[in-house]
Amino acid sequence: MASEAPSETEVVGYLKTLSNWGRWGSDDELGTLNLITPAKRVAAARLARDGVPVTCARPIVTDISPDTTFQVLRFMVDSGEGRDTAPPERLLQRRGASEFIGMVFHGFTVTHVDTPAHFFWEGQIYNGRSCNLIASREGAQVEAVELLHDGVVSRGVLLDVARTRGVRWLERGEGVMPADLEAAERASGVRVEPGDILLARTGNFARRGAEGPVNPLRAGSPGPHAALAPWLRERGVAMWGSDTHNDITPTPYPSMGHPFHIVALVGLGLWLIDNMNLEDLGEACAERSRWEFLLTIAPLRFRGATGSPVNPIALF
Amino acid sequence: MASEAPSETEVVGYLKTLSNWGRWGSDDELGTLNLITPAKRVAAARLARDGVPVTCARPIVTDISPDTTFQVLRFMVDSGEGRDTAPPERLLQRRGASEFIGMVFHGFTVTHVDTPAHFFWEGQIYNGRSCNLIASREGAQVEAVELLHDGVVSRGVLLDVARTRGVRWLERGEGVMPADLEAAERASGVRVEPGDILLARTGNFARRGAEGPVNPLRAGSPGPHAALAPWLRERGVAMWGSDTHNDITPTPYPSMGHPFHIVALVGLGLWLIDNMNLEDLGEACAERSRWEFLLTIAPLRFRGATGSPVNPIALF
Amino acid sequence: MASEAPSETEVVGYLKTLSNWGRWGSDDELGTLNLITPAKRVAAARLARDGVPVTCARPIVTDISPDTTFQVLRFMVDSGEGRDTAPPERLLQRRGASEFIGMVFHGFTVTHVDTPAHFFWEGQIYNGRSCNLIASREGAQVEAVELLHDGVVSRGVLLDVARTRGVRWLERGEGVMPADLEAAERASGVRVEPGDILLARTGNFARRGAEGPVNPLRAGSPGPHAALAPWLRERGVAMWGSDTHNDITPTPYPSMGHPFHIVALVGLGLWLIDNMNLEDLGEACAERSRWEFLLTIAPLRFRGATGSPVNPIALF
Amino acid sequence: MASEAPSETEVVGYLKTLSNWGRWGSDDELGTLNLITPAKRVAAARLARDGVPVTCARPIVTDISPDTTFQVLRFMVDSGEGRDTAPPERLLQRRGASEFIGMVFHGFTVTHVDTPAHFFWEGQIYNGRSCNLIASREGAQVEAVELLHDGVVSRGVLLDVARTRGVRWLERGEGVMPADLEAAERASGVRVEPGDILLARTGNFARRGAEGPVNPLRAGSPGPHAALAPWLRERGVAMWGSDTHNDITPTPYPSMGHPFHIVALVGLGLWLIDNMNLEDLGEACAERSRWEFLLTIAPLRFRGATGSPVNPIALF
Repeated sequence: MASEAPSETEVVGYLKTLSNWGRWGSDDELGTLNLITPAKRVAAARLARDGVPVTCARPIVTDISPDTTFQVLRFMVDSGEGRDTAPPERLLQRRGASEFIGMVFHGFTVTHVDTPAHFFWEGQIYNGRSCNLIASREGAQVEAVELLHDGVVSRGVLLDVARTRGVRWLERGEGVMPADLEAAERASGVRVEPGDILLARTGNFARRGAEGPVNPLRAGSPGPHAALAPWLRERGVAMWGSDTHNDITPTPYPSMGHPFHIVALVGLGLWLIDNMNLEDLGEACAERSRWEFLLTIAPLRFRGATGSPVNPIALF
Repeated sequence: MASEAPSETEVVGYLKTLSNWGRWGSDDELGTLNLITPAKRVAAARLARDGVPVTCARPIVTDISPDTTFQVLRFMVDSGEGRDTAPPERLLQRRGASEFIGMVFHGFTVTHVDTPAHFFWEGQIYNGRSCNLIASREGAQVEAVELLHDGVVSRGVLLDVARTRGVRWLERGEGVMPADLEAAERASGVRVEPGDILLARTGNFARRGAEGPVNPLRAGSPGPHAALAPWLRERGVAMWGSDTHNDITPTPYPSMGHPFHIVALVGLGLWLIDNMNLEDLGEACAERSRWEFLLTIAPLRFRGATGSPVNPIALF
Repeated sequence: MASEAPSETEVVGYLKTLSNWGRWGSDDELGTLNLITPAKRVAAARLARDGVPVTCARPIVTDISPDTTFQVLRFMVDSGEGRDTAPPERLLQRRGASEFIGMVFHGFTVTHVDTPAHFFWEGQIYNGRSCNLIASREGAQVEAVELLHDGVVSRGVLLDVARTRGVRWLERGEGVMPADLEAAERASGVRVEPGDILLARTGNFARRGAEGPVNPLRAGSPGPHAALAPWLRERGVAMWGSDTHNDITPTPYPSMGHPFHIVALVGLGLWLIDNMNLEDLGEACAERSRWEFLLTIAPLRFRGATGSPVNPIALF
Repeated sequence: MASEAPSETEVVGYLKTLSNWGRWGSDDELGTLNLITPAKRVAAARLARDGVPVTCARPIVTDISPDTTFQVLRFMVDSGEGRDTAPPERLLQRRGASEFIGMVFHGFTVTHVDTPAHFFWEGQIYNGRSCNLIASREGAQVEAVELLHDGVVSRGVLLDVARTRGVRWLERGEGVMPADLEAAERASGVRVEPGDILLARTGNFARRGAEGPVNPLRAGSPGPHAALAPWLRERGVAMWGSDTHNDITPTPYPSMGHPFHIVALVGLGLWLIDNMNLEDLGEACAERSRWEFLLTIAPLRFRGATGSPVNPIALF
């Protein structure tokens, strides 16, 4: 596998050689999502033949675990406790329960979308804008998740890399390489085409369930290798998701830190989905021997955000 | 319109006469969502003929406005400001932006799903469980939004009540009545059937945009009238949404407070979507003279929550 | 030491035999704070002879550690990054930095005051009120921290139990007993008198610094033993603080859980300060061979709260 | 009054002419707090002759009012509701109430300390450090509130400007001028001396109570005029507080925005207390015809924060 890995200089070079800056105009903020056409969506909807929806998200819980960087919050504004026996004069105001929820969705535990504004390189984000536009007070003034107000709807393709390799999960520190994607294509009889949302399963979330969570910064994590970038651009992938935080840990390119994020988000304008749960989906595909489906991703319309927690829904 | 309105006694009676308790078994938590079948979803997917997705959600903003009960929070964990000129030795850790988001999604401004656990009547929630199960610490231990992990996917039908009445929007304090739904059905040539997600447009969100936000508790609000309940049960509506907070203000039934919520959530086990934006959808339907579409609602998989902010996506 | 320990029945009995309910009237919410008189404060102020203030609080940090139950939050609303080079037209709005802070101060890490509303026994809080008054929505409607709007100012006395025992710190699971307090009194030549704020040092925070934090629920913790209650009542202690979370873990009285909290808060109306840092104070006292000082505790005037983070200041 | 007001050029010039940069060494972060000596504190403690403590803080409430910029949060983690009748097997875990609290304390409603890191001028904070040190992720890496771990304890002096002028409150837009302070000194027979914490009452908080809150950005606010700066430096004021947000609105110096903050924090290293409640204190002083007292300010030891909510306690 090591033979396939490009040098750090080559990966930094991808930011020029694979650049999509200007490809859809100097004002573009959507990047590779431009590759999804209405016709693509119509074709994708025809894949809904069984009427079975499947989640691609992990549960969101408030526990602290080794992979927590920021704890998720849920506090009741009003609970139901004692409302069965509350004195009648107070009951009118006490017939409802509600809660505050809060989170830093970026990190290692929540399934979420990354917009191109989430990462910078040499002070710039996708399409050459200044990273100063991602401001303390206003948040992301460009390339924010609100651009996806109508959702992302297209054909989803699952390439089950762990299954194709014949392992339960990729080892920590291992990368998904172009050869993995091609092997999975061959094994599943599907070919990734322009406008697809490509999901790659490493088994990483299954391992978390089986062995318990670990801190990826200490224990490592599998992830997509930056070597995928030329392949993803050539195939016209519109959005990439995996069951990892979408970079190998420890990083193979120390001066970049998060090479896959940087090349994908900054260079290609390729939006990402981190920390997916691809276990339910993997089973649903395997049962049907069908690795394509209608996929709907509906980010919150949160103004100024560099992403959103999501629950992507595959429809078979 | 007043002639149609049932007495308070009658509405309280709906909790018995229209009850779905036990209808899908004593363990059921899904209520009317049981009415959505795989076949229903397959048929719904066939409605995707143009490949055009349309949001049904409002933007989520952090401003305080007259209809804010709890301010939405967004704070940057890391911003991009100054990261174009930061000294190189710090840059590696400073190539990403991320944020904390927080909100009380119940209220008047955020588009969100209500689970049956959101309201109680005489100490009970849907299917006869004790409201004590909606606890301070654990949140909703039953009938929580996590039940919808695979999303809600079905045929969506928009009944444009304001358009059918020939007004820009319903007045504050006015209710959507069964006659409104039937008139809208006739006008649009669609019939609400079992398993549908029914969306009713009052123009309330358009008015907010045109005239600015008001506090519904002081200025009033249109909303679905509790008189709809028999009709919704008869037609087999699986989920109800509108561009209001889903109860008329001021309430026509003071001892109940939120009669539509109580009858729908507690009695029928009918899940709700509050505070929708049906303006984009209304235009998309009118352009096509087509009032049905594939609708995907993908709540966050938030454990223990009585609902979730959502961005429902209609696909034409 | 075991010979001193009362039985569980005896400790439960303290709630009657040591009860201060009604002692300061049926409307009282202040409990033992009634014992602090203006004359007491004047005398305490005379102890300020060196003009040296000393903190009794721990730093508040956002890290997750083994003793974190809820992570402390700090997010910048506006930072200063890049504000040195921002374009002039934006500078006017960008000359300040501010932040959001948030926390659940109860727990094991933040120095905080507990009001009597923080704990219940058989459905009641101090002075016989119903625990229903500590409500989801309104918070503590009685016995809330806002009662301390004018602060708590009195003589503070430090009894250094670890020092008196000749150990660096008490072992986990060990309790501070009446004999410890009396030995420390003798060793330091001070006598606890009515209206004093009594602080007991176990060395627990020193151990945290030396060996790193542990989860008290798993590893155990020293703390005040419920056997102290008769002594504290007899001496007229107005407020109690220690460098522990103020109950022994694992609990010696399983059916009570937090016996010291329950007897102190519910029975005596004795307000507590949990998780203090008594290291700086211990050194300041030892240097001077003086174990009394003016102590000022200034809780936030947070309406409806069952406590407040504080930074108690001893003035020598 | 206009005759006293310096030109904008003069006020900008204060940043040089009144600068305390380097006065206490190039490493100094404490600024004017260096002026408080142990002897000063001992003398201040002698002012505690009645033993009566008085708050200088406003209540902290979760309501949204016209002067709210960020809503204060309080949510129960555990409430007491229904805990009187909970089934015994659950009671052990349900005998306590606790809450999450959160706030952006800077703004117009919460009484809080500002550190010098809160404001910048030409990219610098007090003593010539770069504002880049106030970072998104780490917060204030210098001149943070944690420096005040031992509290601020000194003589407090109240100059009641409104009382001296013979008005209930200063009008919005009016400034506290040097002549006001001198008149109040004469009227009260006190002279501000080095190391004092100077509190100036404009009656602004009384007006809020009498007439209801207004948005200072729209309705205006009284505040300290930047013309005070030479006087404050000459007298050696260690800390300044008032019952305003400590700048006149609308600003008399549009290109500076917050001239008092900038000159005080950046130029002088003079720490501020914003949004005080000086009503209780004003009455306590007037009753006694005594305008000096022991003042204790005990900020939370919040790492990296540019300030802290506080409850300053005056002791008479």
